[in-house]
Amino acid sequence: MQIGMIGLGRMGANMTRRLLRAGHECVIFDMFPKAVMELTREKAIGSSSLEDFVKKLTKPRAVWLMIPAAVVDKTITDLLPLLERDDILIDGGNSYYVDDLRRARELALKGIHYVDVGTSGGIWGLERGYCMMIGGEDAVIEHLDPIFASLAPGIGKDIPRTPGREKIGGTAEQGYLHCGPNGAGHFVKMVHNGIEYGLMAAYAEGLGVLRSAGVGKRKHDVDAETTPLRDPEYYQYDLNLRDITEVWRRGSVIASWLLDLTASALV
Amino acid sequence: MQIGMIGLGRMGANMTRRLLRAGHECVIFDMFPKAVMELTREKAIGSSSLEDFVKKLTKPRAVWLMIPAAVVDKTITDLLPLLERDDILIDGGNSYYVDDLRRARELALKGIHYVDVGTSGGIWGLERGYCMMIGGEDAVIEHLDPIFASLAPGIGKDIPRTPGREKIGGTAEQGYLHCGPNGAGHFVKMVHNGIEYGLMAAYAEGLGVLRSAGVGKRKHDVDAETTPLRDPEYYQYDLNLRDITEVWRRGSVIASWLLDLTASALV
Amino acid sequence: MQIGMIGLGRMGANMTRRLLRAGHECVIFDMFPKAVMELTREKAIGSSSLEDFVKKLTKPRAVWLMIPAAVVDKTITDLLPLLERDDILIDGGNSYYVDDLRRARELALKGIHYVDVGTSGGIWGLERGYCMMIGGEDAVIEHLDPIFASLAPGIGKDIPRTPGREKIGGTAEQGYLHCGPNGAGHFVKMVHNGIEYGLMAAYAEGLGVLRSAGVGKRKHDVDAETTPLRDPEYYQYDLNLRDITEVWRRGSVIASWLLDLTASALV
Amino acid sequence: MQIGMIGLGRMGANMTRRLLRAGHECVIFDMFPKAVMELTREKAIGSSSLEDFVKKLTKPRAVWLMIPAAVVDKTITDLLPLLERDDILIDGGNSYYVDDLRRARELALKGIHYVDVGTSGGIWGLERGYCMMIGGEDAVIEHLDPIFASLAPGIGKDIPRTPGREKIGGTAEQGYLHCGPNGAGHFVKMVHNGIEYGLMAAYAEGLGVLRSAGVGKRKHDVDAETTPLRDPEYYQYDLNLRDITEVWRRGSVIASWLLDLTASALV
Repeated sequence: MQIGMIGLGRMGANMTRRLLRAGHECVIFDMFPKAVMELTREKAIGSSSLEDFVKKLTKPRAVWLMIPAAVVDKTITDLLPLLERDDILIDGGNSYYVDDLRRARELALKGIHYVDVGTSGGIWGLERGYCMMIGGEDAVIEHLDPIFASLAPGIGKDIPRTPGREKIGGTAEQGYLHCGPNGAGHFVKMVHNGIEYGLMAAYAEGLGVLRSAGVGKRKHDVDAETTPLRDPEYYQYDLNLRDITEVWRRGSVIASWLLDLTASALV
Repeated sequence: MQIGMIGLGRMGANMTRRLLRAGHECVIFDMFPKAVMELTREKAIGSSSLEDFVKKLTKPRAVWLMIPAAVVDKTITDLLPLLERDDILIDGGNSYYVDDLRRARELALKGIHYVDVGTSGGIWGLERGYCMMIGGEDAVIEHLDPIFASLAPGIGKDIPRTPGREKIGGTAEQGYLHCGPNGAGHFVKMVHNGIEYGLMAAYAEGLGVLRSAGVGKRKHDVDAETTPLRDPEYYQYDLNLRDITEVWRRGSVIASWLLDLTASALV
Repeated sequence: MQIGMIGLGRMGANMTRRLLRAGHECVIFDMFPKAVMELTREKAIGSSSLEDFVKKLTKPRAVWLMIPAAVVDKTITDLLPLLERDDILIDGGNSYYVDDLRRARELALKGIHYVDVGTSGGIWGLERGYCMMIGGEDAVIEHLDPIFASLAPGIGKDIPRTPGREKIGGTAEQGYLHCGPNGAGHFVKMVHNGIEYGLMAAYAEGLGVLRSAGVGKRKHDVDAETTPLRDPEYYQYDLNLRDITEVWRRGSVIASWLLDLTASALV
Repeated sequence: MQIGMIGLGRMGANMTRRLLRAGHECVIFDMFPKAVMELTREKAIGSSSLEDFVKKLTKPRAVWLMIPAAVVDKTITDLLPLLERDDILIDGGNSYYVDDLRRARELALKGIHYVDVGTSGGIWGLERGYCMMIGGEDAVIEHLDPIFASLAPGIGKDIPRTPGREKIGGTAEQGYLHCGPNGAGHFVKMVHNGIEYGLMAAYAEGLGVLRSAGVGKRKHDVDAETTPLRDPEYYQYDLNLRDITEVWRRGSVIASWLLDLTASALV
């Protein structure tokens, strides 16, 4: 199907590529004409202004915003006079879900549908696919299903099925999920990001301890403010963090995608 | 090669099975004769006492302890009169690494080698393989390599290689690693477990928030001690945690093995 | 001067008493007539309804609300038709400061002045005086100065002066402070309460450790899930928390009013 | 009574002064002869070496160490050949209580008594008195009572009595407490210090928020990584931390000695 993409940064450009590869028609716009030009070489339909962008879209239009949270409201204000009843506006960035509730209410007054999509996957999404948490009206989400299905990883072969899942159905196994009414997508993404930071903190603290496992070999002056290190003979290890993060990827209970990235960064 | 296994609980029994399947000879002992009997049906060589167990092992003996940390010292005391110079004692449980340092020192006086192995994998290890973090002397660890290689997952096809790893070599990619001298194995495992608990706390806190995302629908009496919930209209979501944990497994940056287990528990 | 007090719970009743003792005229109202009656015996001027209450106040009226945060907006709505330009409404409870900003804006449209006061002191305030953090317009706060001065502890003799303070002036040493424009009072009080909870957590955690300092005397079964207590000989103390909290009050760096209360609770 | 003091740093020098003022005889030693010389001008009895120091003490000797934790064991080793059965060694510094247990055991073999004293009060102790948490044998602690009583603040008039305390008795109200057998003094002091750090963290975090209460006035560039500040109109306060810490000292529930120091530092 056809989709309009505004914002061709790290995320938006690769999402467009993934959609093009799946056979969708992508009309694109970005403040930087160079970003537009690059993707037109990959068969995207470029546009030179918001007016031009909107004109190239078939009604009812589906416009995906992939831009910094701070400029979403401004962009919606600019787009609004150009859109018409039944058009769909999708915010795929990191908006605060409370803003979604307000925008959905305001846009509904003009008959425009709003969809909030929390998108996870980073720069790896082009190949891996993007995990999407979606909020909005049932019929609208269903209409956009081909887009979500193409952006998502799909069930694939790399990730083993959760036992018992086959009986449950739904799109979660494909890597996208209609979580609830407006705001639900970004709400779930917000919590997802909180979990992400907790995971990173846990790995960081652990690796910090491992890196200092040889502290008993270092000398420290005696003063009244510093407790002397007890039992320096217990801290004599020179550990290889590159190998340890790798071994943990292999059968340990703390294997994860963030650990994969960590191991990769330490090679 | 031959190995003696003491302790046939959840971990020890499955490790024995995995070793038997790989063609190793396993002499086994457990305080509960029933546990021994069950595994002899799967071609393990049972024994009826520590004396019998030791007698059935070829010198230099390799004895793997897979028992609660609280009874390791007692078991070593019982075993010691039966062992001889050049025998190897492996503690694969969750001993505190400081105990490893003491035991290695004491056993060295009798010419017995001590190896500490932090073993991760839980009840899933039989099929997945066990991730092992190993501490001890170079020659001894090398001698035991066939055992570690069989217990470990191996490089397999399920886990993608870390880019650049192919030039590095070593056993980390097989899922086991000689981390350093005695104590290093359990030291790395101790930190590993700390990370695990941090990861679990992060998921739990996030899921707790999602579970309460509909709190705005509930009524609460007014009193002087409780701050009224501000903006209850922002907390009107009924989220499906079963589907959310599944969708996060598919392309999101918080995919992990602990998330796999969580999704599985929620099915 | 004259003040009207609405809400005669634990805080409001004692504040009224303290104001009466200082010679102020207090017109009072509460949903429970019994609470009103009790204080009229102490020379407060009772009222039977909001209308009656407002009628008994001299213009420009000063009305102090000492009621649960959850009912402040409702009470303001009820009061509003009865109040006139130049009247003053003071919220001495625990409102969220963002509500103060809204209320001040709304009341300003009718020429009514709003003052937010974070009040600390609890049930001890009657004797000790109340610490007040105040937000609002300069002239209004100045007009109410006699009220604040009487509620506050005053410089007294019990609390030593901060060295160098004598050159600075202002009312902080008296125990009340005009912190800034509307909302500033409750903002500072909000942070004050956050600090309070941090202090309580610190004492609680410490006392929890002391209470368990004899844990080495207790027996624990051996199992695979519980790490055995190392060095039980180090945890053989039966500590007297009643005496320890008392001794800390006397010259230690963790002496505080919360510690005074703790010591008192343990007697 | 007579006491020997080793270590005339910030703590030891002022403790000696406080003991001298109370009429005790103080024999003193320090690695820096200048520190000794200064205090001899205030009637302390100086000594030029450990031998000289010990010789000037009447048997049974009472020696108080007020030195960095890192040099206590070394100093005890140097002192030991000079001491005799029934002498008393007091460690008033911040030793780890587990070291106390070891030292008490070792010194007991030679008939020497060991006392561990956690001392709180810092550089203000000279005037305020020192809060002392004491571990050791009953008879020894009782023998040293005049020393503890003089170092402690005493019941004084500045600190109100805990209601109900008058019936309880004991020395806690004087500011020193025999907490239990050896190690108990430093154990309680260790927990005391943990509480202290928690209190400091709570104040620091709160003051940090107050200091940034005007963040809404600052500009920030828009980028994809930074969430824009929501509602900058809510963060427009320029708060006076000097006055706020002072007002909290006056009737608020977070008044404390650490707050006194904070207010003093901000003048």
